[in-house]
Amino acid sequence: MLWHMDERQVELNRFAEGWFERNMDRILDDWSKLLQFRSISADPDLAADCQACAVWLAGYLERLDLSARLLPTGGPPAVYAASKHERHSAEDRRVLLYGHYDVQPVDPLDAWESPPFSPVLRQGRLYARGAQDNKGQLFCVLQGLACLRDAGQPLTSLRVLVDGEEECGSVRLASQLDAWRDALQADVLLVCDTYGGPDGRAAITAGLRGLVGLTVTLSGARHDLHSGIHGGIAPNPAIGLAHMLASLHDKAGRIRVPGFLDGIEPPSAEVLRLLQSSEWDDEAYARTLGVAPLGGERGRPALERRGFRPAIDVNGCLAGHTGAGQKTIIPSSATAKVSCRLCPGQQPERCLALLKRHCLAHCPPGLRLDFSDECVAGAGFRLSPDSPAIDLARQALLAANGREPELLWEGASIPIVERLRDVSGAAPLLVGFGSEADRIHAPNESFSIDQFRRGMCFAVQFMRAAAG
Amino acid sequence: MLWHMDERQVELNRFAEGWFERNMDRILDDWSKLLQFRSISADPDLAADCQACAVWLAGYLERLDLSARLLPTGGPPAVYAASKHERHSAEDRRVLLYGHYDVQPVDPLDAWESPPFSPVLRQGRLYARGAQDNKGQLFCVLQGLACLRDAGQPLTSLRVLVDGEEECGSVRLASQLDAWRDALQADVLLVCDTYGGPDGRAAITAGLRGLVGLTVTLSGARHDLHSGIHGGIAPNPAIGLAHMLASLHDKAGRIRVPGFLDGIEPPSAEVLRLLQSSEWDDEAYARTLGVAPLGGERGRPALERRGFRPAIDVNGCLAGHTGAGQKTIIPSSATAKVSCRLCPGQQPERCLALLKRHCLAHCPPGLRLDFSDECVAGAGFRLSPDSPAIDLARQALLAANGREPELLWEGASIPIVERLRDVSGAAPLLVGFGSEADRIHAPNESFSIDQFRRGMCFAVQFMRAAAG
Repeated sequence: MLWHMDERQVELNRFAEGWFERNMDRILDDWSKLLQFRSISADPDLAADCQACAVWLAGYLERLDLSARLLPTGGPPAVYAASKHERHSAEDRRVLLYGHYDVQPVDPLDAWESPPFSPVLRQGRLYARGAQDNKGQLFCVLQGLACLRDAGQPLTSLRVLVDGEEECGSVRLASQLDAWRDALQADVLLVCDTYGGPDGRAAITAGLRGLVGLTVTLSGARHDLHSGIHGGIAPNPAIGLAHMLASLHDKAGRIRVPGFLDGIEPPSAEVLRLLQSSEWDDEAYARTLGVAPLGGERGRPALERRGFRPAIDVNGCLAGHTGAGQKTIIPSSATAKVSCRLCPGQQPERCLALLKRHCLAHCPPGLRLDFSDECVAGAGFRLSPDSPAIDLARQALLAANGREPELLWEGASIPIVERLRDVSGAAPLLVGFGSEADRIHAPNESFSIDQFRRGMCFAVQFMRAAAG
Repeated sequence: MLWHMDERQVELNRFAEGWFERNMDRILDDWSKLLQFRSISADPDLAADCQACAVWLAGYLERLDLSARLLPTGGPPAVYAASKHERHSAEDRRVLLYGHYDVQPVDPLDAWESPPFSPVLRQGRLYARGAQDNKGQLFCVLQGLACLRDAGQPLTSLRVLVDGEEECGSVRLASQLDAWRDALQADVLLVCDTYGGPDGRAAITAGLRGLVGLTVTLSGARHDLHSGIHGGIAPNPAIGLAHMLASLHDKAGRIRVPGFLDGIEPPSAEVLRLLQSSEWDDEAYARTLGVAPLGGERGRPALERRGFRPAIDVNGCLAGHTGAGQKTIIPSSATAKVSCRLCPGQQPERCLALLKRHCLAHCPPGLRLDFSDECVAGAGFRLSPDSPAIDLARQALLAANGREPELLWEGASIPIVERLRDVSGAAPLLVGFGSEADRIHAPNESFSIDQFRRGMCFAVQFMRAAAG
């Protein structure tokens, strides 16, 4: 596909690049201020730091000509902002921007080359906890808003929601969203919290999988039994668990839970064509991770298995003696944690119920089966490559970066995105500039000035285009 | 079967009962001295206590007119003793008596009603660590020897081997046995370290199973992977392990490892008849242990499954996240500890090799399989109900206790017995007076004066009968 930039896009791009050069010092100052807040949502001792970060961010959004306020959640507050005017025209797409100001813990602290909350610029990268995830990727979009304001093209019909506990699962925020339904109505939900393509291009994540999970426990005798005295008499929960878990897939890796695969929306011919043209290298995968990509269903390409097929995984299991040496026992119980990634068309609650029914049907005689930690995080979603939201992002990325973006259908889940889609009615659009080199969640997290600039220029073009 | 005591047996019994009454105080004194040694073989800090116990025991065996010495093993020494004269007649069966002077650790100490190494007599039971296992059951046999000596019927053709590290697996002693082969030659290997029958009768354990074991580890990626990004692409070691472990048995509980069941010696028609007449109560089993006896092969009675069929058990397994809550990962590895109880006719080394071959054949693509902790503890053994050794013990038990003993084919393994059988050429004979009430390996271990007396009277009759 070939895209031609119109005159207005070229001019806006030129303005944005110049604006970024002129404002670089100020941007780095502001970005660094945001990064100095120790907004680790997982640490209750840092609740005041989270609150301070939210207050600072609300003030910053006010400076962008938005009306901002804090949304109490019971945990770290969310920050909400909206443009002061709405244009109310058919072309004017309402954008809901979602990001988060909370960050991951910093352990191990002694692995950091510079303190995690004292941002330092080294060789074109800003180093700090949150430099990318998500303060950096959020802040470059906010700079796009500032640029548009300075270009005399102030925004209408924009809402901003900045989460304060994304790294803890956004549980309290998610439970509050219904109360804010009116304020969140939008056409496009923009999230800049993902990676770009493998070659450094920007990427649009056009699909994510849903997620459900639970813990299964098989119990036998009241206590561990001597495997000599009871071997062949008492049923063994660890062996029972093995049979139960093995029954989830056939030898070809296909899920065997009855009804589980019903309703899955297959990829279109065009998407399959895009997948085939995507870069995928079995050997590079094996080299990087130490394991060949031989999981999942035989006979389907890896990218199709990840983006368009569900997966049931065992995340952990435990039974009996696991220390050094031999202890000849029949364990009294065996436990496994199971999670399922779901595709659009699969109902999460139904899938969890089918999984439980299947486990019950495969519970060996004499053993008791219990479920716990049941979790329905959300359904999968998928945008068609020719959906209006993707069109908008693609045009903006082409205008800003001069290159066609990568389209990704990811296997992961961002449950709050699903919830926000439900509440806001908006099409989710995940555009990311991150890369493996940013080391998010790890020591020495960073984000490059170049990534930041590309993100900002994308935001300028995207917001302008969304405004019609 | 009816047995008639001959005049000599009746008279010897009368003598033994009277001798026990007359010597009771002295016996309790000596037994208590033995119990005061803190001979916990698992505790390296108590090596001197083990040594002192061995020295005391060697002295005691000398007082029984035996020639005693310590056998260095590199750990707690074994004590060896032999009668000073051999009769060398065809009727005179050489007896090798095996026992152990080491005891289990005493934790939790505060659960003891009296200190574990300060023996106390309460309501007809002597309380102390080792009161039964095995100092008590060994010492009542030694009192049988003393009684015979005082009856003017000194022993010939007796060897005694007292192990100092049975509770640690007798590994070092086992490795030394070949060097003592000549000194250990015997016709019958008497071990008093087992339980009696369920109704308090003495029992002869006429069979034990063999034991092999190993740890299997399936490895995938170098580190745990995100189950969203990699689910359906990377093979999951925990799921692979489940398939591998499930492949060990079919749905009816029958072992599916090719060749594993070859050569098993089935029970004779007489043994099957004995099994059918044995007391076995499914409901009592379920009530006691909290699990119904529904393990092992469908369609075979529980006592047959335990005594005459092999069992493969998973003793423990571990993979990935096992803490609270959900962590959506694909574990980098999964491990299981597997042990096999074997029947006579099954070669331990061959069974372990077949098991490994089967696991390799069921290793999922992309995963690496490693074996560790390989252990060949020994083969199973079985005595026919009409074997001469059983005859001898049955006559002695009938004479001493006036009741027909129970015949048990147990599912457990006592590896050193197997090794001793190989080295000594003797038929192993396990005669036990223990009961669940003795609480061996637990706090407040005890052995009743009545159990002790019955054990002593058996030893008197048995040794006399063995001497022809």
